[in-house]
Amino acid sequence: MKISEIGGEFALIERLAAIAPGQGPEVIKGIGDDAAVLRVGPEPAPYLLVTTDILVEDQHFKRAWSTPYQIGRKAAECNVSDIAAMGGRPQWMFVSIVLPHDAQVEWVEDLYRGMGDSCQTHNILLLGGDTTQGASAAINITLIGWATPDQLCMRADAQPGDMLVVTGPLGASAAALALLNSGEKPSDYLLQKHLTPNCRLDISSQIAPLANAMIDISDGLGSEVRHICKQSQVGAQINAAAIPIHDDVRATARKLGVDPLQWALSGGEDFEILFSISPANWEELKKKQLVCYPVGMVTSHSGTIVLQSAEGKILPLPGGFDHFRE
Amino acid sequence: MKISEIGGEFALIERLAAIAPGQGPEVIKGIGDDAAVLRVGPEPAPYLLVTTDILVEDQHFKRAWSTPYQIGRKAAECNVSDIAAMGGRPQWMFVSIVLPHDAQVEWVEDLYRGMGDSCQTHNILLLGGDTTQGASAAINITLIGWATPDQLCMRADAQPGDMLVVTGPLGASAAALALLNSGEKPSDYLLQKHLTPNCRLDISSQIAPLANAMIDISDGLGSEVRHICKQSQVGAQINAAAIPIHDDVRATARKLGVDPLQWALSGGEDFEILFSISPANWEELKKKQLVCYPVGMVTSHSGTIVLQSAEGKILPLPGGFDHFRE
Repeated sequence: MKISEIGGEFALIERLAAIAPGQGPEVIKGIGDDAAVLRVGPEPAPYLLVTTDILVEDQHFKRAWSTPYQIGRKAAECNVSDIAAMGGRPQWMFVSIVLPHDAQVEWVEDLYRGMGDSCQTHNILLLGGDTTQGASAAINITLIGWATPDQLCMRADAQPGDMLVVTGPLGASAAALALLNSGEKPSDYLLQKHLTPNCRLDISSQIAPLANAMIDISDGLGSEVRHICKQSQVGAQINAAAIPIHDDVRATARKLGVDPLQWALSGGEDFEILFSISPANWEELKKKQLVCYPVGMVTSHSGTIVLQSAEGKILPLPGGFDHFRE
Repeated sequence: MKISEIGGEFALIERLAAIAPGQGPEVIKGIGDDAAVLRVGPEPAPYLLVTTDILVEDQHFKRAWSTPYQIGRKAAECNVSDIAAMGGRPQWMFVSIVLPHDAQVEWVEDLYRGMGDSCQTHNILLLGGDTTQGASAAINITLIGWATPDQLCMRADAQPGDMLVVTGPLGASAAALALLNSGEKPSDYLLQKHLTPNCRLDISSQIAPLANAMIDISDGLGSEVRHICKQSQVGAQINAAAIPIHDDVRATARKLGVDPLQWALSGGEDFEILFSISPANWEELKKKQLVCYPVGMVTSHSGTIVLQSAEGKILPLPGGFDHFRE
């Protein structure tokens, strides 16, 4: 059976989790969040966080569009984003690299410089890994970090009545990709968002103590809202008019005849953070003067996940990127 | 510049390590051993061990020769082997899988069953990871475990005068591969060693308290002896006649007109352990009645790494598999 026939990547992950259940007394969270959460000492000792992501040539990056430095930096940032979305701090990075036969030493060194710069920014030690050869390039990063119990924010922690808030404009990476795919040059803003995105570790540690659920936006807002709702057993209503979309994304959408909302909901690789927060804590957070955008509400109607359109219509929330369906 | 021009995989790793030095007060060992060793609490708290390995289709496995179950099991075992070679116990496994476009759900489930069975054998929790699509299949495993300070055995711990000992016969996996490559059927013994190897966690924890240096034999005995000598700043003399080689390997070598020693020294994927041990501790270890084979001695002549042939000649020690040179 094809993976698309069972419903795509997330259905596959559920099946795999059932084959080898990863349950132990020390496992706070195994499969199903941005990172695994493991108890390694008596509380209030911080929990160990582990996340792993693999980037594959032509699927996640193209050597023709990105410098190796950019590929390395983005690979590192998208993993740091996962740790940030747990309310954690990263500490150690491990990298496996698959290199094509014709790979040049300079290319690999530049890739490593990109990862190294991201590590330096976030105070992470790059501790090596594995290097091998294959038909096409791939990079697997495993990032290990820590979260104190009071800072930990899991997908399952959303409460009815919470506000849903995002940390920045969405859809820019997807807009850039659409332009590159049609052979046109994206604006500097769009190109930066696609090729050298910055994860939001800069503000996640300020949000985490006040937020309930958190998740990073790597597969589009639609998918991330559904993940939170599923794990928290809640519903959600997203207000289309409130979703922050940059002018360059709107202009690109007009040019290509696309609804920009589609990129925000399904585009992926924005690496902003979506979090749920009680209205009282939202008032607290506002005092920190971070730039954040409320986009909707958590409801008690488990499984009812809707979008209020700009015209006021209530529709099922679309979106979410799936490698095995698109 | 091509990677082969600078001297292959290990030269590349040295260059990468220089770009992003992974040094911190908590890093007992970063790049350059079977696993990283990290201090996460005051001693005698156990050290955290982290190893990561990537297996790539047609480079490390062929879907035509192996069932997905066998591929998954072997991928898991070769990572457990790295933790065993540190004198550690594995605890948590994280898996990234790249699936080709035509991958079937049943294939992935079987792969996962193979990993799951290895995890069950060694009491490891399989905690998920990442799943994506690419041109060819690949599996990255990150395995995390623990070693107490008194059990930890690093490559750098060999002492002049130590004996060099291996935990089992070598070259069988390479012999099986040579037969498969020439379209012939290997014996059951050879096929098992190549397709469903068992790591030596069964005896490593008994050896570790008595051994000095330890390393797993994944790239051939020649390569592993050189790793120990380089990191311990010692020399070594290996006795060719003492290297254990199974009758099926010798028979295959005769048939294919190859020196079986070449497979033992350069073949790779044996997943036995090479360790150095003082003569006094070797007497202690013998009391445990494990099956182990002394193959040579550690000398104080740093960098002088030789093989004494069956005829008594002293030659530079050959061997060691390198993905970027062979």
